[in-house]
Amino acid sequence: MENSDTLLLKLEEAMGPKGLVTGEAVRQRATSWQDSSPCQALAVLRPERSEQVAAALAVCHEHRVQVVPVGGGTGLVGAVRTESEQVALSLERMNRILAIDPQQKTAIVEAGAPLQAVQEQASEHGCHFAVDLGARGSATIGGMVSTNAGGTEVLRFGMMREQVLGLEVVLADGRVLSSMRPLLKNNTGYDLKQLFIGAEGTLGIVTKVLLRLRAKPTSVNTALLAVASYQRVMDLLAFLQERCGQSLACFEVLWESFYQQILEHNPAHRPPFAQPHPYNVLVESTGSSLRQDQEAFQQVLEVAAEQGLIEDAVICNSLEQKKSLWSIRDDIDTLVESLESAQMFDISLPLQHIDSYVCDLTTTLRARYEEANVVTFGHVGDGNIHLAISLGRHLPAEKAWLEQEVYQPLGALAGSVSAEHGIGLDKKAFLHLNRSDDEIEIMRQLKALFDPRGILSPGRIF
Amino acid sequence: MENSDTLLLKLEEAMGPKGLVTGEAVRQRATSWQDSSPCQALAVLRPERSEQVAAALAVCHEHRVQVVPVGGGTGLVGAVRTESEQVALSLERMNRILAIDPQQKTAIVEAGAPLQAVQEQASEHGCHFAVDLGARGSATIGGMVSTNAGGTEVLRFGMMREQVLGLEVVLADGRVLSSMRPLLKNNTGYDLKQLFIGAEGTLGIVTKVLLRLRAKPTSVNTALLAVASYQRVMDLLAFLQERCGQSLACFEVLWESFYQQILEHNPAHRPPFAQPHPYNVLVESTGSSLRQDQEAFQQVLEVAAEQGLIEDAVICNSLEQKKSLWSIRDDIDTLVESLESAQMFDISLPLQHIDSYVCDLTTTLRARYEEANVVTFGHVGDGNIHLAISLGRHLPAEKAWLEQEVYQPLGALAGSVSAEHGIGLDKKAFLHLNRSDDEIEIMRQLKALFDPRGILSPGRIF
Repeated sequence: MENSDTLLLKLEEAMGPKGLVTGEAVRQRATSWQDSSPCQALAVLRPERSEQVAAALAVCHEHRVQVVPVGGGTGLVGAVRTESEQVALSLERMNRILAIDPQQKTAIVEAGAPLQAVQEQASEHGCHFAVDLGARGSATIGGMVSTNAGGTEVLRFGMMREQVLGLEVVLADGRVLSSMRPLLKNNTGYDLKQLFIGAEGTLGIVTKVLLRLRAKPTSVNTALLAVASYQRVMDLLAFLQERCGQSLACFEVLWESFYQQILEHNPAHRPPFAQPHPYNVLVESTGSSLRQDQEAFQQVLEVAAEQGLIEDAVICNSLEQKKSLWSIRDDIDTLVESLESAQMFDISLPLQHIDSYVCDLTTTLRARYEEANVVTFGHVGDGNIHLAISLGRHLPAEKAWLEQEVYQPLGALAGSVSAEHGIGLDKKAFLHLNRSDDEIEIMRQLKALFDPRGILSPGRIF
Repeated sequence: MENSDTLLLKLEEAMGPKGLVTGEAVRQRATSWQDSSPCQALAVLRPERSEQVAAALAVCHEHRVQVVPVGGGTGLVGAVRTESEQVALSLERMNRILAIDPQQKTAIVEAGAPLQAVQEQASEHGCHFAVDLGARGSATIGGMVSTNAGGTEVLRFGMMREQVLGLEVVLADGRVLSSMRPLLKNNTGYDLKQLFIGAEGTLGIVTKVLLRLRAKPTSVNTALLAVASYQRVMDLLAFLQERCGQSLACFEVLWESFYQQILEHNPAHRPPFAQPHPYNVLVESTGSSLRQDQEAFQQVLEVAAEQGLIEDAVICNSLEQKKSLWSIRDDIDTLVESLESAQMFDISLPLQHIDSYVCDLTTTLRARYEEANVVTFGHVGDGNIHLAISLGRHLPAEKAWLEQEVYQPLGALAGSVSAEHGIGLDKKAFLHLNRSDDEIEIMRQLKALFDPRGILSPGRIF
């Protein structure tokens, strides 16, 4: 008790008066988006500056106190759950966008800045930040760096890793590593920042990020395409990659299971097609000429129809119509609410295996539970699908069995048990399906090198 | 002597009969493209398979023999120089392209495969490999991974790092790390492959690479644009990024110093413009529609001319004309031959500082040596320039002074002492201008973790 008092005093000194939350006020904070149970930490640290993060970590390092960094709480792998003897570290007050340089096409932001604020400010400066995802209002840039976030524009611009030109990171012992040069090319020794991207906070705390921005597109063309078979979905992707080249921005597929589930349970959506189709592909193409791009987009879709690749198409003529199509894709709330005890999965596979994997999985689950429902959607252009699976009343009792059935086949198919959301606490048992013993051993050695006392994001990943 | 005999016997056993070069045959090999002096190694290893690399490294690890990996020998930082007690490791026999998957848009290649072969085979499969550089005939994929090569398409597709989906790497002790899943998204623990990209062979030997390919563009439009001032060069870049969006593929600038040097000394080139201009910008836009793209390209350049951004333009109407413009940009042979004892530099800077840096440097050099000649060209779209500097007869005597003058100002300007070519042996003295003591200390710790006996690429980087 005395130790904990000493610790809290030192932390208060490091953080300043507004920077430390203790006692009942901690319990008033929810754990995450998925988990509304009260936060269990000994304290929540709310630094305002990198130096406070450094001072606090030095204290925690000295006292061997475990630190759980929490971002926007929009993850899916339980990474932000804290235990009563741990402290949570939230950068919610370090949410400033410090600079945007439209000529150099860079932004410097604090790690607690929410994605949407960065998108909006970039846009005001005539630039585009090239990662987008449904949780844009809550997800923070620091959390997105630490999980190497994906989203709907990976096909063209890559994941978060490709948008990071520089990082400021506080190490476990309070040292600050900074590489914030606004350069696309800088081959001077090991690119250390790569280690922290996707490390889920286990190697250091990201405090500032130098982001790469892109030119803002002038035109955006969106369509929902009805496709009769998965083979045609693949053919359509290849066709669009050839015909649209780099202007193809999104290729999202809503399986009939997803399309029907959302439309049936949320009357706010107007059905885009008169009848359901096996696959519904949301494509978006962006460019720099309003009229020419729209004509070209329509021509490409006409050829796709002539070649029998698509059965039907809704081409958006207004921003309203575009929003309405995307609102179907993004309506995860309806999905979660309408399925009994649904569990979400985030996996990736080589393109050609995706549909057969979903079919086989559905067959397996239904053989045991007739009511099993596998709802499928995702970033097929990146080989990444999300599954919402319900086993009726049999979840969570059958959670372990279900996870085994979902993840086990991925090893042999050269797939991944986590495409976007990382390993966290929830997927540790399946890491070996993707990583060899040697790889995991090297990860542990890296962890020991950067965080010898194991205080950062304890127990995450491995 | 006995030790060295034992070693060679063991290496021969590991490598097979054709895999080991010793004695006079070693001296018959040149050191590199820049350095035709005889190779000095104790032996040259020429493995045919990854297992032979693993066996050979295990032997070298046991005997604490240093291993210098050599690729195409097209680097600029002395990384392939070997000493008489070291062995050179060349993957020249591991040059196969093992698979190309046009649907998944991936290629699996051995590390010794030359860039051009990969480009050509990708093209035959309707795909595009998105790194290109002048030394394409010699540069190997493994060397390009180990130096994180750049080239002329970084503006759009990123450097080599962004093309690597997976790696097979042999560690110093002979263990093989393999992560060859053909996935764009795979967030399962630390992305270890990132450590080996750009590590210049100091952490492991890259033996196989899973490359990302892109859709092959249908149309390529090329032009050389005459620009009156550097401010307008920057404005032109911003204008083209806005107007061409993702179809802008290259933005290479030939300063007047470069343009004149090449045209005056190689009569094979036809001067594109009637009179010289301060800046000559080679731009290339690619797309997916022959006629529409050409029209759009011409329209954009007309607007650029109306806005006063460009003084003159040569728009290519034939492949022949395109080749002829690029041959000016790529004529490094003429550059090197026509300048007395020229030294090449490869640096990067924030866009707005580039021209003033070049002017200041020229002034400084001329203050000491009237005959100083700073010839400037490069990937300005990426903030990366190359300098060929002659001090007349004062090089190499004044090499150390020259390097100091070139690199020292970069620290304060947030530039980089090596944009594309790495640190190798030649830039070690300047690493501290880019990296803090803490960063260099962590690099050393990583080196010790992966290569505790320090046998791989000894003395490179730090």
